Amino acid sequence: MISLTPVPLTQESFAPFGQVIETNEAQSFLINEGTTRRYHALANVDVGTSGGEPIISIFAGTRRDIPFELKMVEKHPLGSQAFIPLQAKPWLVVVADDVVNPEPEHLHAFLARGDQGVQYAKSAWHHPLLILAEVQSFLVVDREKPGESNDANLVEHWFEAQTATVDIAGLLVE
Amino acid sequence: MISLTPVPLTQESFAPFGQVIETNEAQSFLINEGTTRRYHALANVDVGTSGGEPIISIFAGTRRDIPFELKMVEKHPLGSQAFIPLQAKPWLVVVADDVVNPEPEHLHAFLARGDQGVQYAKSAWHHPLLILAEVQSFLVVDREKPGESNDANLVEHWFEAQTATVDIAGLLVE
Repeated sequence: MISLTPVPLTQESFAPFGQVIETNEAQSFLINEGTTRRYHALANVDVGTSGGEPIISIFAGTRRDIPFELKMVEKHPLGSQAFIPLQAKPWLVVVADDVVNPEPEHLHAFLARGDQGVQYAKSAWHHPLLILAEVQSFLVVDREKPGESNDANLVEHWFEAQTATVDIAGLLVE
Repeated sequence: MISLTPVPLTQESFAPFGQVIETNEAQSFLINEGTTRRYHALANVDVGTSGGEPIISIFAGTRRDIPFELKMVEKHPLGSQAFIPLQAKPWLVVVADDVVNPEPEHLHAFLARGDQGVQYAKSAWHHPLLILAEVQSFLVVDREKPGESNDANLVEHWFEAQTATVDIAGLLVE
């Protein structure tokens, strides 16, 4: 079984899979008579394909059974999907290379800080939510098309040969 | 001078001005093999006017001088704007009725819990960020159009006759 060791999440390392949503002085400016700093356009929501409209949801996650066994990845061919933690606790981001049928050797695991969100790019393979706390909620910005099933924007791929695990020793939080 | 007393923020009371972003069992369902509850489409992002595209930003707010003196409101004629607190502390939401030139008697003040966000509807008059903590950050979902100045989506209206204040006795937080 392949065991993934998470590496710190950075904009550079995550670039092939989407955008990291974190404050970045370089793209910030003051507004509201100087009382607010705007960290501008940290992610560009990309959900317009096939008449999609952007929506804001909340995902309330619970921790999966330990050890984490990764059996599949999914992707959203019609739109980006952003996750931003609403409690500032570290969490895991697992993505896969852009191949037709990813297997565990195509996975990459990132350790996100509690003040880091991500936006998976349209069609980027990723594992569903993996939290390190017992519970953690996320703001989610993704897509719906009125009258269309959400299944139209969901492709799941289950690994064929083996599963993977993640080395979370020392990473669990309250 | 008019003094506003904040009332609790609810979906019903805020409906004329936009949407409240909060968990609501009625529009939720389980996903991710039962490990995550999705509170679905709490806000519908409305930024497509005139070629606008949705973007995700972070606003880092600092508290205004006390007492809060409200001198103006603003609106965004080309798109909705959502604010979701990234630290779960109560904050203030001040909006104005849909009149051409709002004055203090048109204002409404709401006390939002730390787990409540709002989305101001397109063209809804609102006061810029008013926090009760010394600092608080918000995830913001609004609009930009590549190549266009953000000023195109900003209308400010300064009150003519008088200003307003907000009764925040007992509401300030660390």
